Amino acid sequence: MHAEKEKANVGQQPLNNGKVNNVNASKTNSSRSNNSISIPSVNTLDDNGEGDGGRENDPTFYTRSTVNTPALEDDVYESLDYDVCDNVLFREEQKRIDNALFNIRKDIIRWFIFIQIGVVTALIACLIDIPIEELSAVKYTFLKQSVDSNIAPDMNPGANLVFPYLYWMGLSIVPVILGATLVTYVEPITAGSGMPQVKSYLNGVKIPRIVRIKTLTVKAVGVVTAVVGGLVGGKEGPMAHAGAVVAAGISQGKSTTFVKDFRIFRAFRDDHEKRDFVLGGAAAGVAAAFGSPIGGMLFSLEEAASFWNQNLIWRTLVASVISSFTLNIVLSAYHGLNNFTFTGLFNLGKFEQPLSFEYFELPIFMLFGVTGGLLGAMWNSLNTRINRFRSRFIKFKLARILEAALVAVVGVTLACIMIFFINDCRPLGNDPTDYPVQLFCEDNEYNAVAALWFQTPEATVRSLFHDPPGSHKILTLTVFTVVYYLLACITFGLNVSLGIFIPTGLVGAAWGRLVAMIIFYIFPEATFLSPGKYALIGAAANLGGVLRMTISLSVILMETTGIETSFFFPLIVTLISAKWVGDYFTEGIYDIQIKMSGVPLLPWELLPKYKGRKASDIMSSPVVCIKKRDSAKYIYNVLRRCKHNGFPVVEDVEDDKRQNGRVCGIVLRSQLIVILLKSLYEEKKRFWEKEVSIQTFRDVYPRYPSIDSVRMLRDKENYTVNLDIFMNPSPVRASEADSASKIFKKFRALGLRHMIVIDRENRVVGIIARKDFLYK
Amino acid sequence: MHAEKEKANVGQQPLNNGKVNNVNASKTNSSRSNNSISIPSVNTLDDNGEGDGGRENDPTFYTRSTVNTPALEDDVYESLDYDVCDNVLFREEQKRIDNALFNIRKDIIRWFIFIQIGVVTALIACLIDIPIEELSAVKYTFLKQSVDSNIAPDMNPGANLVFPYLYWMGLSIVPVILGATLVTYVEPITAGSGMPQVKSYLNGVKIPRIVRIKTLTVKAVGVVTAVVGGLVGGKEGPMAHAGAVVAAGISQGKSTTFVKDFRIFRAFRDDHEKRDFVLGGAAAGVAAAFGSPIGGMLFSLEEAASFWNQNLIWRTLVASVISSFTLNIVLSAYHGLNNFTFTGLFNLGKFEQPLSFEYFELPIFMLFGVTGGLLGAMWNSLNTRINRFRSRFIKFKLARILEAALVAVVGVTLACIMIFFINDCRPLGNDPTDYPVQLFCEDNEYNAVAALWFQTPEATVRSLFHDPPGSHKILTLTVFTVVYYLLACITFGLNVSLGIFIPTGLVGAAWGRLVAMIIFYIFPEATFLSPGKYALIGAAANLGGVLRMTISLSVILMETTGIETSFFFPLIVTLISAKWVGDYFTEGIYDIQIKMSGVPLLPWELLPKYKGRKASDIMSSPVVCIKKRDSAKYIYNVLRRCKHNGFPVVEDVEDDKRQNGRVCGIVLRSQLIVILLKSLYEEKKRFWEKEVSIQTFRDVYPRYPSIDSVRMLRDKENYTVNLDIFMNPSPVRASEADSASKIFKKFRALGLRHMIVIDRENRVVGIIARKDFLYK
Repeated sequence: MHAEKEKANVGQQPLNNGKVNNVNASKTNSSRSNNSISIPSVNTLDDNGEGDGGRENDPTFYTRSTVNTPALEDDVYESLDYDVCDNVLFREEQKRIDNALFNIRKDIIRWFIFIQIGVVTALIACLIDIPIEELSAVKYTFLKQSVDSNIAPDMNPGANLVFPYLYWMGLSIVPVILGATLVTYVEPITAGSGMPQVKSYLNGVKIPRIVRIKTLTVKAVGVVTAVVGGLVGGKEGPMAHAGAVVAAGISQGKSTTFVKDFRIFRAFRDDHEKRDFVLGGAAAGVAAAFGSPIGGMLFSLEEAASFWNQNLIWRTLVASVISSFTLNIVLSAYHGLNNFTFTGLFNLGKFEQPLSFEYFELPIFMLFGVTGGLLGAMWNSLNTRINRFRSRFIKFKLARILEAALVAVVGVTLACIMIFFINDCRPLGNDPTDYPVQLFCEDNEYNAVAALWFQTPEATVRSLFHDPPGSHKILTLTVFTVVYYLLACITFGLNVSLGIFIPTGLVGAAWGRLVAMIIFYIFPEATFLSPGKYALIGAAANLGGVLRMTISLSVILMETTGIETSFFFPLIVTLISAKWVGDYFTEGIYDIQIKMSGVPLLPWELLPKYKGRKASDIMSSPVVCIKKRDSAKYIYNVLRRCKHNGFPVVEDVEDDKRQNGRVCGIVLRSQLIVILLKSLYEEKKRFWEKEVSIQTFRDVYPRYPSIDSVRMLRDKENYTVNLDIFMNPSPVRASEADSASKIFKKFRALGLRHMIVIDRENRVVGIIARKDFLYK
Repeated sequence: MHAEKEKANVGQQPLNNGKVNNVNASKTNSSRSNNSISIPSVNTLDDNGEGDGGRENDPTFYTRSTVNTPALEDDVYESLDYDVCDNVLFREEQKRIDNALFNIRKDIIRWFIFIQIGVVTALIACLIDIPIEELSAVKYTFLKQSVDSNIAPDMNPGANLVFPYLYWMGLSIVPVILGATLVTYVEPITAGSGMPQVKSYLNGVKIPRIVRIKTLTVKAVGVVTAVVGGLVGGKEGPMAHAGAVVAAGISQGKSTTFVKDFRIFRAFRDDHEKRDFVLGGAAAGVAAAFGSPIGGMLFSLEEAASFWNQNLIWRTLVASVISSFTLNIVLSAYHGLNNFTFTGLFNLGKFEQPLSFEYFELPIFMLFGVTGGLLGAMWNSLNTRINRFRSRFIKFKLARILEAALVAVVGVTLACIMIFFINDCRPLGNDPTDYPVQLFCEDNEYNAVAALWFQTPEATVRSLFHDPPGSHKILTLTVFTVVYYLLACITFGLNVSLGIFIPTGLVGAAWGRLVAMIIFYIFPEATFLSPGKYALIGAAANLGGVLRMTISLSVILMETTGIETSFFFPLIVTLISAKWVGDYFTEGIYDIQIKMSGVPLLPWELLPKYKGRKASDIMSSPVVCIKKRDSAKYIYNVLRRCKHNGFPVVEDVEDDKRQNGRVCGIVLRSQLIVILLKSLYEEKKRFWEKEVSIQTFRDVYPRYPSIDSVRMLRDKENYTVNLDIFMNPSPVRASEADSASKIFKKFRALGLRHMIVIDRENRVVGIIARKDFLYK
């Protein structure tokens, strides 16, 4: 429930030998204090909370966990609290409001929010989509005119391409630099596609600043500039991210960026409810990006949901449908379709003829899948190396911006070289190209190479899917595939907002079409080799090889190209092959990115190295515990001196050895801070008793103050805090002998953050946190 | 893991005043012993296991749970065990086999089984589909000829319809009686659609005989006869059921019906694995029934899965795709399509023109939804009343068969009356009817009423969707709708195998088309009122109102009619309205059926009456516990004298009061029976120590013997059973103060069967079973 801004490795000390080094006090979001302070270990505090380093015989704090590696170098990620803290206050609220009317009202509001999420996400998608289309149109029209006017058949051709080349460079570099600057200086979290971050969030990891309005703005502007700048990327990932931000913003009824609390939807202010909305928002974003409502819903499920709830999925689907519907209305209106008829939004172009296949093609599809898996794994590993190099050597912000500009220049240059040297002229007429450039071709012909480059990547995918056979030379496509493959590889990881879906699909479509053309060239009687069909299969194979999504990918491809259910089978065959082959070598690109950024993602299955282990092998101990009635000073000192996020609440403490008490609950750092801040002491109960409710805690969600903001005056030190009504009285417990796999299953299924390990007398022996299952 | 044949209300005594009445010993499947024996309560057993009724001061056994109603009259349903019992034996096996190779092998086998499930399910679907089509063709061709040859324009028409009427009656009654006899006498569980049973199974309730081969056979023959007999029903539900049976059969590698154990797939013999396969099987069944792979997968998810796992869903999707693909191959081959091209399988006919809509139609769609919700709720409540009447007054088997025949006769008679009295002649030509009957029409005309009746219900839905405007009179459709609505209502609940999907959709299509025609009649300028489109909307509304499925329903409709993503929005609007309105009045028909049959289905959300309650309010106590080392005689007596299914294992027992021991594990009735049967006593450990493994227990899965099959010889009585290696050492525990909603969440998320309630010293104070959350 209360999560942001605290450390997730709860109640455990990643230290040895009783010395606490480099334990940072909890940091606020805005200003992270980086001063490492050396303080005595908490267990040497006596009951008054005063440090007493002299007692050498005290039990020392150390990590018994044999698998728990030291904290990551930059341990900024925290877990979300999906477990509802049903303390006394919560129950009182429940009792007060738990009637049919309230529940119906809450349900209606929830629906209302989901519908809003769909609509707003779609509008933002339009704000991204329309500028991209318009600016690209302006850019490529200008370039086409510039090329056409500079080339006269009687002149030396090379000399006259200099101006168009320079124009092209300029029109690419300016927006790219603009976008990269925004991303680098204003909000670095917006770099990349955003999918890994959304995935992490839904998995239960708090990524700082991921769902802010500022992030959304920078992301939207960033993706427009990057795509218009001609970088190799798409807008799909950023749109999913945008949907997630919209969902988080709308559902909470307040904005940190604008420091505005609308005082609505306050019942939804906890991690659990917020996650559900973000799930819907991401789905709506994908739905808007692809015009694929079912695909959007399945994407959310595939990448995120571990706990499945019928109603939640239904709401998610509705958000997706509303989102793609709204997008369509706005785009139809924008494009001036006279009757606003909902005509379908096939982003990758509809296959007018139902695709069909012969059974002997199935092995070919499988081979495509295998190829896609291999190429994808290669791409992933190449990209990872490039990004590792990047993070090591390109550290200055300016260098990162220049790097982006450089990649733009390289792209333009390579494209120009291709256009200049490859002579691929095709007759004008039934050509589907928006900006046919004549270049060195005869009249009534256009340059097929330029046609590939003079549009957005999305439009190029459409061309590869739907251009009639014989629209390209084999040489053209070969060079194009190689260039694009490498360009995509160096682009993903730049400090710009760009998605990976479209370029990956584009590479696949290119080699798919290419292979079909080559086979057809060798066996001209193989008429089944429709290039469009094989471009689609190639795109599926490549996407499967790079992203390793399966369910949502197949449905998205189906929905964006309008292929029939009957062609589902070849897609599935291709995707299975690609995924299996790819998984043999590397992980999917999103997972690689998540891992590289050090986000503690909880995997679907228990990692093999934990198998056969018991709770006592993975838990950390001893645990910093708090008595049910404890002194304010002790609590204050604990909070100051360790960064744990959850503390078992114990009773029946013998000899003030809190570690050996019997578990009666768990309390979160955030709750303790609020208690101290608001002075909710036992002795002063008559003053606050009537005013305090669960709302007191919810009001500060999700940005709890740091312990630094609590000032412990001398006179407050002797007050007592009674945790009875604040603690969560039903923490999930495990015994020492429980197997790791069972504990993992509970973490996964219940969305837990920590679990207390007890002995057979219900005394604390250790604690297991989410992160204990992560590191390899 | 070990579930079948035991009672789920574990460790609780639904009794009062220390007297145990009518406690049946656990029953075997084949012969349920119905003799009620009066025995002393278990807690009056002393350590030797001997009853001692004389001690009046002993604590009495009573149910403290205030919400737990007495056991159902016929408490035949048991829970499945989805929680893995990781006892010492299991861990030993894990250790032995847990290497990469074994896991890969298991994974491959799992995939192999899923693919097999897809293929076999599709083949069975063909075996159902082809006979229905062929026999219906024979039947209606014959009837058409009979009608045509008996009607001469110059004769008195009434007299000459007698023969066709009698033929029709005969051709309906004979198959219906055949099917009803099979269902009634051979396997009564096959009555109805099978969806409720599959849903219950996936929810975690063991329905006896639901996944047997015999059940499958009867179901298949039953549905063919019922549909051919002209009863108002479809084959879709039974196909899903068939898929589930296939999955259960294939995955276990053995068959009870044929008493054959193939000794393969033995690693998959537990409830958890089996459920996953059944999930895939049901999905494959739906996919084959509708030609809708995504719909099939979503159906499984919507109706069943509470724990979501990426890989599982991916496998389910693959099973669905393979199933619909196989079906298509076989059907293409059967229909002699020359090139076997996979042409798509649009069961309800493809809308060739993309459906479009204007925005002002959205309120109309909503009104359709509301109407569908109202009609559906009415239908559900009417059907429920009829079925209640039925179960009260039609008890004899013969009566049930005759009832089915009677309904068939009523159907034929009503149809004949309609045909006779309504004069609806349409010109032959572009008509899509397979059996155009001239009847009293002019030459070159056909009777539109007869056309509606002279085909299977599925074909009628196709007609209503796709017939050109003006194919029917308003009067025709009005009467048809009313007649069909009522016929469907009395048919569902007969002792025949029939699904509800098609008739429900048919009624909706009929009134949808009708309403469109009426509005068009009043406002002839409303050209947007395409009757086919409104038939589809009506079908969606009615289906939503009756079934209350949403996600899968919309996708199934989309996939079976080939409508585009763009028309998804109207469908969703209609379905939401229908579901909301319907939910206000009744539950969905499947849930009603489940409730009526007394199946303890775990709902999605905690029932309102449990809100605010604590563990101590819902638990049952005292609990029958077993010591970690206990005497064989005590265990034997416990098993004989109470029907509980799980027993907490305790240690630190003071004064032999087992109820107050500290929890150290839980052991299942099935495990105890196996221990006693195989004489796995501590004293004889050297004899069995090397042979016993988890396989010993798995071999008897899922039909564990009853305690009656254990003979307790005098000399065995004094042996000791050490449960150390047999018990599950990590039972899920709750404290007394835990809230019911949290406990429910754990039950739901972890698929639990029982949870032990402990006090703060880890002593047993009560037990909560799955069923404690069910009864209203």
